[in-house]
Amino acid sequence: MLYQGKNYRSVWVSDEKLFIIDQNSLPYEFKILELENIQQVFAAIQKMKIRGAPAIGAVAALGYALAISRSKDSQLSENINRYYKLLLASRLTAVDLKNGLDAVKWAIENESDPKVIKTAALQAAEKFVENSVLECQSIGRYGNQLITEGCRILTHCNAGALATVDYGTALAPMREAHYCGKKIFVYVDETRPRLQGMRLTAWELAQEGIDHAIIVDNAAGYYMQQGKIDLVITGADRIAANGDIANKIGTYSKAVLAKENGIPFYIAAPFSTFDRKLQSGKDIPIEERSPDEVLKYNEMELSSGLSTAYNPAFDVSPAKYITGYITPAGIFNSKDFYKLWEMNIREQSSRQS
Amino acid sequence: MLYQGKNYRSVWVSDEKLFIIDQNSLPYEFKILELENIQQVFAAIQKMKIRGAPAIGAVAALGYALAISRSKDSQLSENINRYYKLLLASRLTAVDLKNGLDAVKWAIENESDPKVIKTAALQAAEKFVENSVLECQSIGRYGNQLITEGCRILTHCNAGALATVDYGTALAPMREAHYCGKKIFVYVDETRPRLQGMRLTAWELAQEGIDHAIIVDNAAGYYMQQGKIDLVITGADRIAANGDIANKIGTYSKAVLAKENGIPFYIAAPFSTFDRKLQSGKDIPIEERSPDEVLKYNEMELSSGLSTAYNPAFDVSPAKYITGYITPAGIFNSKDFYKLWEMNIREQSSRQS
Repeated sequence: MLYQGKNYRSVWVSDEKLFIIDQNSLPYEFKILELENIQQVFAAIQKMKIRGAPAIGAVAALGYALAISRSKDSQLSENINRYYKLLLASRLTAVDLKNGLDAVKWAIENESDPKVIKTAALQAAEKFVENSVLECQSIGRYGNQLITEGCRILTHCNAGALATVDYGTALAPMREAHYCGKKIFVYVDETRPRLQGMRLTAWELAQEGIDHAIIVDNAAGYYMQQGKIDLVITGADRIAANGDIANKIGTYSKAVLAKENGIPFYIAAPFSTFDRKLQSGKDIPIEERSPDEVLKYNEMELSSGLSTAYNPAFDVSPAKYITGYITPAGIFNSKDFYKLWEMNIREQSSRQS
Repeated sequence: MLYQGKNYRSVWVSDEKLFIIDQNSLPYEFKILELENIQQVFAAIQKMKIRGAPAIGAVAALGYALAISRSKDSQLSENINRYYKLLLASRLTAVDLKNGLDAVKWAIENESDPKVIKTAALQAAEKFVENSVLECQSIGRYGNQLITEGCRILTHCNAGALATVDYGTALAPMREAHYCGKKIFVYVDETRPRLQGMRLTAWELAQEGIDHAIIVDNAAGYYMQQGKIDLVITGADRIAANGDIANKIGTYSKAVLAKENGIPFYIAAPFSTFDRKLQSGKDIPIEERSPDEVLKYNEMELSSGLSTAYNPAFDVSPAKYITGYITPAGIFNSKDFYKLWEMNIREQSSRQS
């Protein structure tokens, strides 16, 4: 992703040091943090300095591999297990976190020579990360086929480069269209309560020079009704076998409004987001987060203090509202998911990465 | 309305002094302001210390009549016109503002005795205000018929006692149900960008002891989908002859979501909100307000400063999404509006108040 014209990733290794962009400082400050040890990797994930499932998977893989490579040979075997358990506990729901750790662990599980283990761990982590970038680039190229000259696109939350390693999922097609010289305009839902749209997506688009405006979540329906939105693309946290998707709270509302107004609604997601074992969206548990995320902003009270708030973090959009799924292997609808299963994508994205 | 167990109105006269509750201080502080002259009435409306169409109508009527009553006899005729023009310019869109001023002006237009004029002005203003209270009470009684024991109701923005003189429009049925001993629960949309739900509606409900929770606007669809909302009631800024309504941005989204989930969606409004001359919602101009309402909160920057925001203040919900209209004369659907026209309600609410 661009920042002041220079290319960055959300997480990277340079001279065997691990760096991330601190997402908690954005958009007020662009801060690069070095994560010096496994405890700092754990804390960065837990405190959401790095967030977004693919980005979490990447920092976990790299952090895990680097910690292994720095381990004393005598404690190597013990540390491989200890570090794995530690990082796996840093966030509860992210499947990519486990995928990232597994990619490293499985690459070294039949090795005994410490030198081989350390090299293989780093190679596996790097391969996992590069694969993640390639998946997003591929999503970008396929999604770009949906974007016509002058297209006005709505997106919700942040499924951008910050949430992945680079390019993003939902934002990848918009980046690609922009790089191809298409003139596009993006309506950015601010995405209460945590304002990821306002703070992160708008920031990414501004850095890329992609024309956009922030709107309150309440206004998305208005612009659809006015015929000012041609296409909706969001990311997803999980996609069930029947095509139901879980994503940031408010996605369901936009999906219903898009259908009502005859606007195509697409989900952009890497392979790891598809969960063949999950029958439908009804089986996805919805995380209820702290009322303070709603009632306060940066410690400032927004309400009287006399009321509570309910704060579901995600909602489920049934497959019937979703026009298609932009994946690294092309654009599918839920009836064609068997083609994805034939590619054995979950196996690929974990076992072989 | 209750505050710490004591009854208040949003605006009232006591010992020939005019008082309002300062809505800009809420919910942080409950502040009563005296408006000492016509300039202070103008400023209070303009700076939105008092807001909500019926409340603006009431403060305009009372402020206008009091200023007339304090006028020197020699300048009376000149001041009657000057004060009218001044207050009419305090807000651009509110039809109630004009109704309130007209109620006073028409009561005195055929009088020439200064003493009679001053008395008649005050009486007309008080009658206008009492009529406004009676309309809201009537809305409350009719709307209460829709509310069953255990009913879970969603509301958007603030159409409560603060926005009227007392009781409210959308909140009147909830107050009435609560006074009748029904157990109800209210989901309060926080209502970005200005957070009238979070700041005002939740505060009113907390003061009344009505069970409620604040939710982000993104979460309303989720609770509808979960079967946790039985009924939606909102206010309206304008209602066209075909039943289309204009109301706070986001109302359209809730109306579509309610229809999609089979949930009744009602509009509560006094007579003055119905505009027989307006053919449909398409004719209602939508006010675009400052981007800063979206991008800042109490002077605090929420975004990077690199992006703009679009900020439409209202949207239009077509009649097909609206189950019924709770009026002071009963509950109607748009096909029955001719009954309202037969009552000649706009004439009544202006000429005769």
